[in-house]
Amino acid sequence: MEKIEKKRLEALRKAMDEHDIDCCIINSTDPHQSEIPPAHWRGREWLTGFKSENGTNGIAVITKDHAYVWTDNRFFIQARQQLEGTGFEMMPLDGPEAVDLIDWVSKHLEAGKTVGIDGMTFSVSEAQDMELKFTENEIGLRTDFPQFDFIWTDRPARPLNKLFVHDEAIVGENVDSKIRRVLEQVEKASADCILISALDDIAWITNLRTAGDISFSPMFVSYLYLNTQGKRVLFIDEEKITEEVKKHLDLYNIEVLPYDKVKEFVGKLPKEERLMIDPTLTAIGVYDHIDCQTVFGGEGVAKLKSVKNECMLTHWRTAMEKDGVALVKFFKWIDEEYPKGQLTEMSLSRKLRELRLADPDCVDESFAAILGWNGHGAIVHYEPSDETDVPVAGPGLLLVDSGGQYKQGTTDITRTIVLGGEPTAEQKHDFTLVLKGHIALSKAIFPKGTRGAQLDILARQYLWNEGKAYYHGTGHGVGFFINCHEGPVQIRMNEIPVPLEPGMVMSNEPGIYIEDKYGIRCENMLAVELWKSNEFGDFYRFRNLTLFPFDLNLIEWEIITPEEKKWLEDYHREVYDRLSPLLSEEEANWLSNQCIIHNA
Amino acid sequence: MEKIEKKRLEALRKAMDEHDIDCCIINSTDPHQSEIPPAHWRGREWLTGFKSENGTNGIAVITKDHAYVWTDNRFFIQARQQLEGTGFEMMPLDGPEAVDLIDWVSKHLEAGKTVGIDGMTFSVSEAQDMELKFTENEIGLRTDFPQFDFIWTDRPARPLNKLFVHDEAIVGENVDSKIRRVLEQVEKASADCILISALDDIAWITNLRTAGDISFSPMFVSYLYLNTQGKRVLFIDEEKITEEVKKHLDLYNIEVLPYDKVKEFVGKLPKEERLMIDPTLTAIGVYDHIDCQTVFGGEGVAKLKSVKNECMLTHWRTAMEKDGVALVKFFKWIDEEYPKGQLTEMSLSRKLRELRLADPDCVDESFAAILGWNGHGAIVHYEPSDETDVPVAGPGLLLVDSGGQYKQGTTDITRTIVLGGEPTAEQKHDFTLVLKGHIALSKAIFPKGTRGAQLDILARQYLWNEGKAYYHGTGHGVGFFINCHEGPVQIRMNEIPVPLEPGMVMSNEPGIYIEDKYGIRCENMLAVELWKSNEFGDFYRFRNLTLFPFDLNLIEWEIITPEEKKWLEDYHREVYDRLSPLLSEEEANWLSNQCIIHNA
Repeated sequence: MEKIEKKRLEALRKAMDEHDIDCCIINSTDPHQSEIPPAHWRGREWLTGFKSENGTNGIAVITKDHAYVWTDNRFFIQARQQLEGTGFEMMPLDGPEAVDLIDWVSKHLEAGKTVGIDGMTFSVSEAQDMELKFTENEIGLRTDFPQFDFIWTDRPARPLNKLFVHDEAIVGENVDSKIRRVLEQVEKASADCILISALDDIAWITNLRTAGDISFSPMFVSYLYLNTQGKRVLFIDEEKITEEVKKHLDLYNIEVLPYDKVKEFVGKLPKEERLMIDPTLTAIGVYDHIDCQTVFGGEGVAKLKSVKNECMLTHWRTAMEKDGVALVKFFKWIDEEYPKGQLTEMSLSRKLRELRLADPDCVDESFAAILGWNGHGAIVHYEPSDETDVPVAGPGLLLVDSGGQYKQGTTDITRTIVLGGEPTAEQKHDFTLVLKGHIALSKAIFPKGTRGAQLDILARQYLWNEGKAYYHGTGHGVGFFINCHEGPVQIRMNEIPVPLEPGMVMSNEPGIYIEDKYGIRCENMLAVELWKSNEFGDFYRFRNLTLFPFDLNLIEWEIITPEEKKWLEDYHREVYDRLSPLLSEEEANWLSNQCIIHNA
Repeated sequence: MEKIEKKRLEALRKAMDEHDIDCCIINSTDPHQSEIPPAHWRGREWLTGFKSENGTNGIAVITKDHAYVWTDNRFFIQARQQLEGTGFEMMPLDGPEAVDLIDWVSKHLEAGKTVGIDGMTFSVSEAQDMELKFTENEIGLRTDFPQFDFIWTDRPARPLNKLFVHDEAIVGENVDSKIRRVLEQVEKASADCILISALDDIAWITNLRTAGDISFSPMFVSYLYLNTQGKRVLFIDEEKITEEVKKHLDLYNIEVLPYDKVKEFVGKLPKEERLMIDPTLTAIGVYDHIDCQTVFGGEGVAKLKSVKNECMLTHWRTAMEKDGVALVKFFKWIDEEYPKGQLTEMSLSRKLRELRLADPDCVDESFAAILGWNGHGAIVHYEPSDETDVPVAGPGLLLVDSGGQYKQGTTDITRTIVLGGEPTAEQKHDFTLVLKGHIALSKAIFPKGTRGAQLDILARQYLWNEGKAYYHGTGHGVGFFINCHEGPVQIRMNEIPVPLEPGMVMSNEPGIYIEDKYGIRCENMLAVELWKSNEFGDFYRFRNLTLFPFDLNLIEWEIITPEEKKWLEDYHREVYDRLSPLLSEEEANWLSNQCIIHNA
């Protein structure tokens, strides 16, 4: 089977020839290092055919004789399937067979050859790593090879969606205050100014959002320059600025310059100025134009953004209620429709989106819903598509990981339910081990200074005790009406050297995946809060944010302790008490049935 | 009160003047970065009066006007007391008031001034850190100021104790095999040879030991050079070599050169040779003489040493039985003597040492016993001395942390017992929280790749849940008839990026410390072993090594789960079964009483 991608690969090799490039490396991000880039920058997907709505982590390497896509273990199965017949093969980025990409290129190119990249889609750090290694092997690196300009004729334009102001009554902090806090960090590092490339940081600072620039996150394509003398410049396509937004920008003395002017602007900064940039988030293609001094830093902006104020946390309660109502309608609808035998993963996915977006404050889903029936649930990053869709019929487990972008906060929840009769003993046992881990992490108490890697085992311990494991993170930071995956703090096996702090909002999502059989995951969102201070220090705990019951039919009560049962009872009571006033009587009755623990 | 140390400080300042040194920084280690240096290198203790048998972590900084000793929070109370009247003051190395030493020096010296250190007692890394910061501030660093050569007239000589061979039937691996494994690492790093400075690494590689060079660890003062061409040189004072040891060295083709020749030797290595050194363990005073290329590395030797083979683990069982017998005699003796009212911390300490050293295979204690009665038990690094000694009388808790250097393995155990009647409810509750943590870590199961920081919370969770905490590590590696504290793996809150592997032996020692009232710690040693391999990966567990019962009078049974009680029953049964055949009938009866769980 020959695919269109093969022709595209030919065109690329021709362009490489014309520009004296021996090897081309193509990233899957945009000039802002976005996890899910706008269509305009999804050239790597267009070229290779390896793609998904939630974005795919993949780097393509093309030489005269080889064409590979490196990706991580979440995507191995999918990448192998999608790359068939495209001329590309898959290379593992991690796992026991991992191949180091830069090493591979260094070994497969002779001295004197040249690697070409589009400098706008690689960070300063990435490009410097390559340069270091390539130079050792006498291989050249050119960062001025925007390959898609030459071969992608029907490339989508840059998104021009209108911005809107994220109400400061919801956000609880105005733009001046945020800029002041960012500039405090700039001054601390003896810098004079900062160029911010990360779209979520810019959206957070400016209290502006849009819909549609980037799937599933209401950020907008731009750069932001701030200096300690009060100069503030937003680089953005002017079509995106409405009257209302212009007023908002004027109020905070933020000038607007065209998006494309950023390189020229940084090139003209006074030579003695000290410009702070985050080398992991700034494109080398921008950095190459800077003529003044640079200070590497700026990762502190993400840290500021990750700590949510009480106003945001209060509104997040509203978002959770809205989301809970949508989920009640969704799962109740499944209960009613399932017996008719007409459901498929895709029909569920469409219904869920429709129910969430019925709320005017929900501008998008927070990612493409992961809706996995039986074996599909075991594929950690599975998202149904027309090609993979299956009927949701017969007995089995359904895993639903989804969320919404509400103006009052982003949601992210996973529930696993049994359909078509009693679950097997194995399914109940695995579900209960996962739930026990979920509860243990929810109940954690820990002193100031504790990092995610220290807490992670609480969620995994019951699985490990039986020789079972999941290999994804247990928890990620969640943004407030921005990215659903937000740094810098995570709860995972890897060390992330940033402690949890009150106001941070994290997911709690242990799981278990039995290949070709089923996947189970239990996910709520948690906010860190101060519990008590005493002679031993400050102790923190989690406050649960998410509102939806767990499937009681999947619990093996014999291995649930009295403390765990009490946690479940209290949690289900809160879910019912807060959601039922927002539901019809019929819906409230359905929810009540889901919440009451009869059978233990 | 004026102390002798004040005169010494005057003498030092005079020597500084004569050598044009404006600020002198004095480390508390030897040319091998030993934790407890031989008396010859304990000049910082001699100068400042801040000392203990187990060594003290302290760096002295002397300028014309100031004299400080930086130390960590384990020693704050002790340092303040001991430094009174010496002319020195204490500076905190950690904690909320921490002062960065290099920063302090940089700020308190004017440009153009000179810092002097004895290059033999600072590592390459330490000296390079200083140089970097000082150079920024235009301060000079001289590494050739061996201050004690000028002022310490009655300085003890270098230790000249005879070596002996550590029986290879106990060790389970001969010297050739160990050298081969070390040189594999050297070759992997594209080096040709290695200079090893760490005394425990040298003792491990050569299967040689001594007694008395260094308190509490049977290592000997030396350097070891190995190259991939088969050259092997031990730099050591020749008085230490017996006939038997000479034969052993000849067997493995190890040449002997005088200890003082090491600088000359590394200075004459062929310029093209690539010498591997560990910058954290090699003295800058040696490094300054190297004229060939250097490769920083060699930390892998500690990793090799930390994984014990089955032969060592089998012999360790014997060491634990010997140690258990000594402890039965000790605690039984306390039971008998306590009512007479004549016990003191020091008398207990002497008795414990005498009982351990009664075994001919026990060459030393593995550290000066920490024997803390009531309030003294709350001082984490308390070790009784004639000045601090108190009667062990009236009601209270006794904390005993001690160990022995047996040829069959090093031991380290802590038990806390109640004397003089019933413990308070608070004491029982705290003891039980600590014990629950101890049991939870003992029972941990975890996949390959897990690091200590991930497991640490298991031991702390019950304390944290009640807003209590201890701030020392939970577990350290234990050497095999070498250092009781052995790297690189630890179980602690800090990240140590080395995973636990089968064969590693760790302590498990959670505790709680209530100032001026009591200290509680429960410590056993654990060996990591493979539990099972399946589709989820390789899973490891701990095998318990230590043999002595916990004080059942201190347990609040109401908060002990059935699983924890079973663990205790099984553990006490093993203790009794393995120790009783080695005891008199009377001793066995006493032990039986300690082991049987009546009251739950």
